[in-house]
Amino acid sequence: MEKIKIGICGYGNLGKGIEKEIVKSEDMDFVAIFTRREPNILKTLTPVKVVSVNEIEKWTDKIDVMIMCGGSATDLPKQVPEVAKLYNTVDSFDTHAKIPDFYESVNKVALENDKTCVISGGWDPGMFSVIRTYANAILQNGKTYTFWGKGVSQGHSDAIRRINGVKNAIQYTIPIEDAMERVRSGEMPELSTKEKHLRECYVVVEEGANTDEIEKQIKEMPNYFIDYNTIVHFITEEELQKNHSKMSHGGFVIHSGETGDNNKQIMEFSLKLDSNPEFTASVLIALARATYRMNKEGRFGAKTILDIPPAYLSAKKAEELRKVLL
Amino acid sequence: MEKIKIGICGYGNLGKGIEKEIVKSEDMDFVAIFTRREPNILKTLTPVKVVSVNEIEKWTDKIDVMIMCGGSATDLPKQVPEVAKLYNTVDSFDTHAKIPDFYESVNKVALENDKTCVISGGWDPGMFSVIRTYANAILQNGKTYTFWGKGVSQGHSDAIRRINGVKNAIQYTIPIEDAMERVRSGEMPELSTKEKHLRECYVVVEEGANTDEIEKQIKEMPNYFIDYNTIVHFITEEELQKNHSKMSHGGFVIHSGETGDNNKQIMEFSLKLDSNPEFTASVLIALARATYRMNKEGRFGAKTILDIPPAYLSAKKAEELRKVLL
Repeated sequence: MEKIKIGICGYGNLGKGIEKEIVKSEDMDFVAIFTRREPNILKTLTPVKVVSVNEIEKWTDKIDVMIMCGGSATDLPKQVPEVAKLYNTVDSFDTHAKIPDFYESVNKVALENDKTCVISGGWDPGMFSVIRTYANAILQNGKTYTFWGKGVSQGHSDAIRRINGVKNAIQYTIPIEDAMERVRSGEMPELSTKEKHLRECYVVVEEGANTDEIEKQIKEMPNYFIDYNTIVHFITEEELQKNHSKMSHGGFVIHSGETGDNNKQIMEFSLKLDSNPEFTASVLIALARATYRMNKEGRFGAKTILDIPPAYLSAKKAEELRKVLL
Repeated sequence: MEKIKIGICGYGNLGKGIEKEIVKSEDMDFVAIFTRREPNILKTLTPVKVVSVNEIEKWTDKIDVMIMCGGSATDLPKQVPEVAKLYNTVDSFDTHAKIPDFYESVNKVALENDKTCVISGGWDPGMFSVIRTYANAILQNGKTYTFWGKGVSQGHSDAIRRINGVKNAIQYTIPIEDAMERVRSGEMPELSTKEKHLRECYVVVEEGANTDEIEKQIKEMPNYFIDYNTIVHFITEEELQKNHSKMSHGGFVIHSGETGDNNKQIMEFSLKLDSNPEFTASVLIALARATYRMNKEGRFGAKTILDIPPAYLSAKKAEELRKVLL
């Protein structure tokens, strides 16, 4: 069997997740890591080749799909359209509002170069998008609710860290159980932002900092906290490291619909993840398989998980899927 | 906009569900019902055309997709390969063990006639199959558990009705909450049949029947009950009609996987359905849309929901899906 040759571009939490998980895919070879850092100093978990990103164009005959492991804020919007000139790609671009623009920029390059580039993979966008799409297609007379957490929001944690006097901070987004129960009952409530999630913050301050003032600044921060019930705890750096360094996350997509004479029909999907980056990595690996297949079939351009038959993510043959999983 | 012209073949609970739900799809026209009964005597909910199934070959220019609403036991294995000579089809064939043979017989006819035939749609097989496939592709080091219920099993109800002295019966399959909790904990238990579901039966007997003997016969019935904990209630026909005539159902697919250093990752999908046939009908309608599109693209042959991009089920445009649901 010819194996799918995988490279990754970027070696943070997500890249490490790919490195750990890709061994489970017997149909894949993990070929190289491309990094902006000095390749010699990168400590990898496996004896994989490490290459400077400046040499990325020399590996086109050795790699089938490049998994892009940079961040959504600045890395991916710049890197993916560049790399898509040379490689099929998979990424986890997750800035929802900017997906249409990102799609256009990647699609153009991919079409010009006969490449297949799957954008915005992972779990949200990703698996949650899949569920929202099926649910809305099946129960058109319905409403979809997405709840996130309990899990760390990097954006909100960063926002707290920018406050004067704050040394470190972790912010958990927590779905409100009462709201979820109302949705599950089929009531189809209108829920404000505040009614769906609360925000719990663990904050380490510098010596002599005014905690009352910091708490006020957090709770009143526009966009990030003002519209939510927010709980603030002040703790030590040691406590933060010990109790709040796990990368667990999760969430719920609940679609409530009606058919016939007021028959309530509820679809629910949830994830409970001990490791957010390792799960995202696992989705990207499955999408890399689909990317490879679609490219072989001549389906070029930017794609999302919504454009891909579920069977394409699986290493199992179609006959086996029909027999065992259908 | 050109509408997709839909016919249905068979007019039982599922056919009625299609008739009720199809109005929600503005991109579809409901053209005709084909029946084995005398068309004049069929009482429909809407003023749709009713046609004898003997005239089905005369409507090929008026119908794009025929939704097959017969039963899996005897109707679909015979009807679908016949109708696939003339029409694109969608069906809900759900005898899991016979899917590979059914696929082959439909695939052959569909390929010979440039038709697209989506088999085994609905929720299991159907939406549950989709979740099992994604889950196994993403978390390869894991285990998938399917729990059904609470809901009526027609097969088990029928089996009870065949016992001497039984007038009527309804059997509920009920998932065992403890087992589900063990699965959700990430423990990946080995669960026997008995540990996953229990069976609760409501039985109406003929006057003078020996209820002890009937209860014993139910509980010891091979294949159907012997391997389960079974609860039997004897009730009156009135009670049965009043309290046990709803067609609610549902179930759970839970996939428990591990990544990295013992990080547990749990994916769960569930359905809570007031009306089993109306939900199944809603899935088949969305699949009819996908069938039409695939046929236009020249993708002929038998297909399953695993072969179809999620976006194909939706009436929304790709740009809108990326913007709103991704």
